[in-house]
Amino acid sequence: MTTSVFTPTPASIPPRDAGLRLRQNPDLPVHIHPLNPLDFLLRAAQIYPEKVALVHRDVAHPVHYTFAVWAQRVQNLAYALIKAAVKPGDRVAVIAPNSPLIADAHFGVIAARAILTPINTRLRPQEVAYILEHSGARLILVDYEYTHLIKGTNIPFIVSNDTGKPGDPYETFLSDGRKFSGEKGWAGLDADSDENTPCVLCYTSGTTGRPKGVLTTLRGSYLAAIANAFEGQMNSHSTYLWILPMFHAAGWTFPWASVFAFATQITLRTVNYTHIWNHLLHSGVTHYCGAPTVQIGIINDPLAKKPPQPVKAIIAGAAPTPHLIAGLETIGITPIHVYGLTEVKRDQADPPESALTCCRPMRSKLMARQGHAFATAQEVRVVYQPAEHSKEDELIDVPRDGKTLGEIVTRGNIVMKEYFRDPEATAKAFRGGAFRSGDLAVWHPDGTVAIMDRSKDIIISGGENASSLAIEQELASHPHVLEVTVVARKHIKWGERPMAFVVLHPQHASKWAGRHHDFADDLKAHAKARLPGFACPEWVEVVPELPKTSTGKILKTELRKVVAKL
Amino acid sequence: MTTSVFTPTPASIPPRDAGLRLRQNPDLPVHIHPLNPLDFLLRAAQIYPEKVALVHRDVAHPVHYTFAVWAQRVQNLAYALIKAAVKPGDRVAVIAPNSPLIADAHFGVIAARAILTPINTRLRPQEVAYILEHSGARLILVDYEYTHLIKGTNIPFIVSNDTGKPGDPYETFLSDGRKFSGEKGWAGLDADSDENTPCVLCYTSGTTGRPKGVLTTLRGSYLAAIANAFEGQMNSHSTYLWILPMFHAAGWTFPWASVFAFATQITLRTVNYTHIWNHLLHSGVTHYCGAPTVQIGIINDPLAKKPPQPVKAIIAGAAPTPHLIAGLETIGITPIHVYGLTEVKRDQADPPESALTCCRPMRSKLMARQGHAFATAQEVRVVYQPAEHSKEDELIDVPRDGKTLGEIVTRGNIVMKEYFRDPEATAKAFRGGAFRSGDLAVWHPDGTVAIMDRSKDIIISGGENASSLAIEQELASHPHVLEVTVVARKHIKWGERPMAFVVLHPQHASKWAGRHHDFADDLKAHAKARLPGFACPEWVEVVPELPKTSTGKILKTELRKVVAKL
Repeated sequence: MTTSVFTPTPASIPPRDAGLRLRQNPDLPVHIHPLNPLDFLLRAAQIYPEKVALVHRDVAHPVHYTFAVWAQRVQNLAYALIKAAVKPGDRVAVIAPNSPLIADAHFGVIAARAILTPINTRLRPQEVAYILEHSGARLILVDYEYTHLIKGTNIPFIVSNDTGKPGDPYETFLSDGRKFSGEKGWAGLDADSDENTPCVLCYTSGTTGRPKGVLTTLRGSYLAAIANAFEGQMNSHSTYLWILPMFHAAGWTFPWASVFAFATQITLRTVNYTHIWNHLLHSGVTHYCGAPTVQIGIINDPLAKKPPQPVKAIIAGAAPTPHLIAGLETIGITPIHVYGLTEVKRDQADPPESALTCCRPMRSKLMARQGHAFATAQEVRVVYQPAEHSKEDELIDVPRDGKTLGEIVTRGNIVMKEYFRDPEATAKAFRGGAFRSGDLAVWHPDGTVAIMDRSKDIIISGGENASSLAIEQELASHPHVLEVTVVARKHIKWGERPMAFVVLHPQHASKWAGRHHDFADDLKAHAKARLPGFACPEWVEVVPELPKTSTGKILKTELRKVVAKL
Repeated sequence: MTTSVFTPTPASIPPRDAGLRLRQNPDLPVHIHPLNPLDFLLRAAQIYPEKVALVHRDVAHPVHYTFAVWAQRVQNLAYALIKAAVKPGDRVAVIAPNSPLIADAHFGVIAARAILTPINTRLRPQEVAYILEHSGARLILVDYEYTHLIKGTNIPFIVSNDTGKPGDPYETFLSDGRKFSGEKGWAGLDADSDENTPCVLCYTSGTTGRPKGVLTTLRGSYLAAIANAFEGQMNSHSTYLWILPMFHAAGWTFPWASVFAFATQITLRTVNYTHIWNHLLHSGVTHYCGAPTVQIGIINDPLAKKPPQPVKAIIAGAAPTPHLIAGLETIGITPIHVYGLTEVKRDQADPPESALTCCRPMRSKLMARQGHAFATAQEVRVVYQPAEHSKEDELIDVPRDGKTLGEIVTRGNIVMKEYFRDPEATAKAFRGGAFRSGDLAVWHPDGTVAIMDRSKDIIISGGENASSLAIEQELASHPHVLEVTVVARKHIKWGERPMAFVVLHPQHASKWAGRHHDFADDLKAHAKARLPGFACPEWVEVVPELPKTSTGKILKTELRKVVAKL
């Protein structure tokens, strides 16, 4: 790892012989230590104080921090928040791209016993205002590039110019925290006695209504992070590249998982494929996360080639196509498909309420089907309501026949605690005593769960249930397709029929220029050879790009609006 | 893996579409699932039903079980125990070598919500009787080879002939459990609502007094097992070889850690180096545990050569010498040194109350020194009582100077809950609000903890503290030394001086036959070049073997008795 000359601010340098223990409640039994992801950082600072923890390089002012220095900055942040009158349980909003600011916040806000509230930087000011108001944020930590999102706010805020240098307002904030601490150090900060205390509040993107606040606990974060580190087989030789925005569902817990494993993290402010490939090829990156759409961008970049070290790509947000999985494997990247449960009754929700199932590396189709309980998750089930059961809250397992469609539900330690300040929505999401995903699936005899679709995405064609996901996977195997999505369109005879929207692969787009109708025929023939008639797309439309959420998920709701007008 | 033709008993075959969920307390919130290592097996049976979980081959009746079949056997065992009137919280003793019986018990006893009480097969009948009485065992599961240990007991017992065949009393017990279950399956068994419920009771070997019962909880076992799987980088391609007796401190949690990782386990009834090397070379073994003395036997066996696959050796029970570490690395085995806390005020205690520190692979000396907090452990400290602090329960950290001697203490989730039925001993072990290990160490400026010795093992020579451990490590580097141990011997001038007991390496023993005095001089010269004068052994005695506990720890107490008479 090449790192330019950089010296952290004096307030970032920890004292020699610094203790690395929070003040624990002395009334707890000796064998009980409340689970808390903050402990990962204290342990890393103890075991690997001189190892590089955080690298932020592709910016005007590159910085890097060792675990010892980073832990000190986190401690400074905790004291700075306490000095700013942040009390346990208060919400601290963070609006920042991947950068030390938001990485610090994942530990420093918890160290102050407050609740981290990351806000999507791609939202509009009025959406940000809603989240700030709903969360009742006491303070905002904001990156210089996103101050326009909080223009006119009454809430106190601290700006980071992302320089890491004295004079940067964020650095001044940290330095003042260090002064305020009076060098009491970690022992001056209380550990939470209750591991079920909330620590993160992530808002859904709210494409069809107001965003909801997904509240998760210290225990849930700790156990999910350990599971991610284990499933990803991360260790102290790992390097994690931040392509996924950290504000997205607490970065799928990787801000903590990476530290648990003593891995080095590299932060990228934007999804820049040149930077990504530079790091994949020259910085020893072993792990990264990304939605399928980002993964498609990575494998189709002109710089793409096999990295010198093994790389694991954690994929979630949507099901990867067999085509994408094969594409990753071709360049030596091992995909790990994680199914993150998204919110009930919503098409495109950002934060998974829990990362639930994990696909162990398997090949193409088999891989794209599955769904298995995550290491520390419990009880992934597929349930339905047979006609003879009328109670909506009675959850009956579907037969494991690979055919009967049901809803994926779960419970356990890595499920959210609740929707913040929304008991009605919480009760609805948890009806029947399990978290209702709204995702439809079948259960195979071998115990794997095959996600068919969101409830809305099933196309009822001639009385048959056609999975838009299954159709998309077959269409994606056409060599000229870069991205494809399928929605239902009304049909006089069949009720509904699939309509496909396709982005052509740049290398082949010219071939079909002015002949999109011929391409549509070609793709339909491709589909006919692979799918039952009722699942073949009746219409194919070539488009320059697909509408997406701020986190790269395809906005089927937008396409449905288009289709409704046809 | 070659496995002979074997068909499990009909009662072991699970029904198709078997549910793999325990009955959960419906009053628990959706985001709370009590931690329980039994869930590892249910998850493995769901995800890898057909994968081989357990192989027991080097016996008259070889058996192997897939995760699905094994889980069914465990369920049968749980129902059989319930049928035998075992109630939640009751103790079920197991007296068995490594075999399916004791592997089953690590899950089946927990599934019946009872407390597993493994008993060391190397104890004498009166010691076994004491443990059975003290634990108040309700039932005994005993291997056919060890029935003499419970002769005349009033407690009901079930014998396993270790055949896995119909007609074997243990198999009949399981089959009757299956019948008793009425096919209610897992859903007919209640999950414990409280993860702090005890699940294992292991007795110390009690060389200087009555054995004590170390009680650990579901939560502690779950978190320690996950940490072991993570630290060992185990996964579904791993194969764990049972050399360490499973009755020893719940097999250092590897009965659960292996299943968490979906690894295959191979059980060996005895420490047979021919079998061990056969499996290392031909069965794809990737992980095993063993005390240093066993590891020495492995590397010095004539069959020893580099296995075709990478192998990790987890070492605990005593500090490995740099010589041993180098020896393992030479044949491609990566040592991972785990410091398992042993009981306060006792020289050779069998079960670590917690596996506390873990040595990441590092070379020789550095490796043999350290000690770092384990993945899910907390707060390893080295404490002392400066003269100005008179309260015995006030724990003050020693300076991190690599010099000041203190006691290793800890607290956290993987520490035992208590000594069973011994509140006095528990209070003593936990005085000051931490578990007092009785092990002496220094704290280095880099945060590592260097274990110097048990309190008793420090030799006060001419007013200097000489660590017998450090002396042993230097003596072990002599090429003709197979094993060595050092104890204090009274000395008129210096107070105490080190005395070394040495077992010569078989390849070099003949060279020194009849010339042990010359060897003593040679070893003293070797020591003089490497150690300060006060730490050099004044006496060297060549012995055919060292006295050891039933689990292979050197019995320094025995040697001290010998020395006292000199």
